[in-house]
Amino acid sequence: MQLLSNVRMARNDSESGTYAFSEPGALALRDGRIAWIGRDGDVPSDLAGAPRRDLGGRVVTPGLIDCHTHIVFGGDRAREFEMRLEGAGYEEIARAGGGILSTVRDTRAASENDLLSAALRRVDTLLAEGVTTLEIKSGYGLDIDTELKMLRVARRIAGERAVTVRTTWLAAHALPPEYRDDREAYLRDIVMAGMDLAHEQGLIDAVDGFCEGIAFSPDEMARVFDHAAGLGLPVKLHAEQLSDLGGAAMAARHGAISADHLEYLGADGIAAMARSGTVAVLLPGAFYTLRETKQPPVQGLRDAGVPMALATDCNPGTSPLTSLLLAMNMGATLFRMTPAECLAGVTVHAARALGLTDRGRIEVGQRADLAVWDIAHLAELSYRIGFNPLHARIVGGEFV
Amino acid sequence: MQLLSNVRMARNDSESGTYAFSEPGALALRDGRIAWIGRDGDVPSDLAGAPRRDLGGRVVTPGLIDCHTHIVFGGDRAREFEMRLEGAGYEEIARAGGGILSTVRDTRAASENDLLSAALRRVDTLLAEGVTTLEIKSGYGLDIDTELKMLRVARRIAGERAVTVRTTWLAAHALPPEYRDDREAYLRDIVMAGMDLAHEQGLIDAVDGFCEGIAFSPDEMARVFDHAAGLGLPVKLHAEQLSDLGGAAMAARHGAISADHLEYLGADGIAAMARSGTVAVLLPGAFYTLRETKQPPVQGLRDAGVPMALATDCNPGTSPLTSLLLAMNMGATLFRMTPAECLAGVTVHAARALGLTDRGRIEVGQRADLAVWDIAHLAELSYRIGFNPLHARIVGGEFV
Ligand SMILES: [Zn+2]
Ligand SMILES: [Zn+2]
Repeated sequence: MQLLSNVRMARNDSESGTYAFSEPGALALRDGRIAWIGRDGDVPSDLAGAPRRDLGGRVVTPGLIDCHTHIVFGGDRAREFEMRLEGAGYEEIARAGGGILSTVRDTRAASENDLLSAALRRVDTLLAEGVTTLEIKSGYGLDIDTELKMLRVARRIAGERAVTVRTTWLAAHALPPEYRDDREAYLRDIVMAGMDLAHEQGLIDAVDGFCEGIAFSPDEMARVFDHAAGLGLPVKLHAEQLSDLGGAAMAARHGAISADHLEYLGADGIAAMARSGTVAVLLPGAFYTLRETKQPPVQGLRDAGVPMALATDCNPGTSPLTSLLLAMNMGATLFRMTPAECLAGVTVHAARALGLTDRGRIEVGQRADLAVWDIAHLAELSYRIGFNPLHARIVGGEFV
Repeated sequence: MQLLSNVRMARNDSESGTYAFSEPGALALRDGRIAWIGRDGDVPSDLAGAPRRDLGGRVVTPGLIDCHTHIVFGGDRAREFEMRLEGAGYEEIARAGGGILSTVRDTRAASENDLLSAALRRVDTLLAEGVTTLEIKSGYGLDIDTELKMLRVARRIAGERAVTVRTTWLAAHALPPEYRDDREAYLRDIVMAGMDLAHEQGLIDAVDGFCEGIAFSPDEMARVFDHAAGLGLPVKLHAEQLSDLGGAAMAARHGAISADHLEYLGADGIAAMARSGTVAVLLPGAFYTLRETKQPPVQGLRDAGVPMALATDCNPGTSPLTSLLLAMNMGATLFRMTPAECLAGVTVHAARALGLTDRGRIEVGQRADLAVWDIAHLAELSYRIGFNPLHARIVGGEFV
């Protein structure tokens, strides 16, 4: 048990979705949960004996949640990035072994330990900014062994660091060359058969896919989602990133917990997501890296009451981003989200995008996953670029 | 004296402006300079007795140089950032006390010690990424006392931290309200009289101005530059950020060491800069924050052989950026500079933008200001977003 005193809490107004500071007060943490919230002078007698830590008037928010990452992968794509800037075209980069298949090759070749240590460097950068829950997708194996290897690495990260990891089965990320002429077999023998196996081994918390002209169609993904439903697994989808295929609406019909990217989402998709309570996960790091000019329909989502989350999409190709604070700044600068929306987007709405209701808000009964900041105003978290004002991270009630 | 062995050096090809790795080798540092460069087995006998540090094959670059910052200021503008995103217009923000004049008010009101401690938090973030030389401008006082106070803070930063600070007199940053009806008096009594005083007190290394419709004209800045020339001070200019007033060409005619921003720079300006050897300092943080769509003429500058530097422009209004690595990523992503150009832009060309020739390259005789990185390829420094692979920083031959 522990008392945090002299803190200013960023408490979420669930009606408006905005955050407001409370007056300086106190928080009691017990058994990894928030046990009591009140004024410094009002601590109930059964808590008054707990060790007390004065946080000097600092700001406490829920621990940050990065709800969309591909942070486990082999190799990097720095040379491909350079070739592109030196004027190389798609063909030349493909001939030089670039593109997503180069990451697949490097991920297949890497040992589990090498994948782990490379991923931990990136994960540590996120944690240093107050992240306490992290989603990690498979999807660079495209064969069962490597997909399972990636997910074992994701699970091991939760053992190596004080962070909750939620894993996602993303074998439907791209079609590997060996199945180029038999999409059907890939879906059946790898995506669905692998899902069964991974589920059996306790390696997956949700199922995802990349729904796009260059990847899988809404019909194909619908079959994957039906298979996931048979296993009781929640689903989500990379949708409407490069074109409007109606993926988000299909996902919403399947009760998806989130649809992600959404630059090309139209009014029908928004309406479908609003009906199903699907979270819109916006990924400004990919928007920025691809120099996309089509903005996700933030005003439409806002008007329809679709909750918006923000995530890093950390991946070696289209978003080599390891800063969730920077994703917040990009959400504000590039997508015109308000700082309150950005903060909700990496806390309460990010939790919901992962199907989690036990975190993301400062309320009695919530997990005591918290971030303590050296700031005077919540807007500072979105306003600064490349600055980390974290003072301390609290996971399950413990300072880590 | 010290020997760094087993290092891969990023050595600049002064012809092409690009960087290349040398084979793993050794560097001798003596009296704060690079004394010898060669193969691990070839260390000359007079150096062979020096303490030797094995850097494990890591990459060494010149220490990074941030050649354009406004990092000393009072207050912040987070609330203004938020108001704008909540839909407030210019008028409303001005009524609420926002804009540059709010920073002027906060900077005037702040004590020298408070300015110093606030600036050090930002400076430390830069140093953590391998910065070893930093430019700092005045310009939020707009009265002599406050301008001098800012510059004393800038000088104190060099006493508090292992970094070279170059200071710049930027009283010609904006017209303060008290001179609204007498520009002439402001230029004479504050910009030039203050310059004399600051110069007398050893507080300035260069003179700058903001040449724009909303600030000072090329003719006004020309008179300021003539005054600076009388004191033997180098000049530089914020030019062509929002419109093409011919500021860069005027600056070039005055032998300016740099012209900065340059989104609206035309062919005449490029030609003038090429003739005078003026460095183009590109500031993608402001471009990004302002959601500017007009790109600086990178290809034109490249074709004309104008050296391009990159800097953070760290300031509370238009670029609250404290990551030079992120400025490199933005230079690549937003301005299509190659990673080699980005690296030259924060080393050899940034040094030149400050009139310094004793740093920015790995050559015998150069200052031993170095950055040691945990990377395999130089392009990684520009490719990643929000990730810091610095292993160690070396200033004047010492690990710090
Ligand atoms: Zn993704
Ligand atoms: Zn500036």
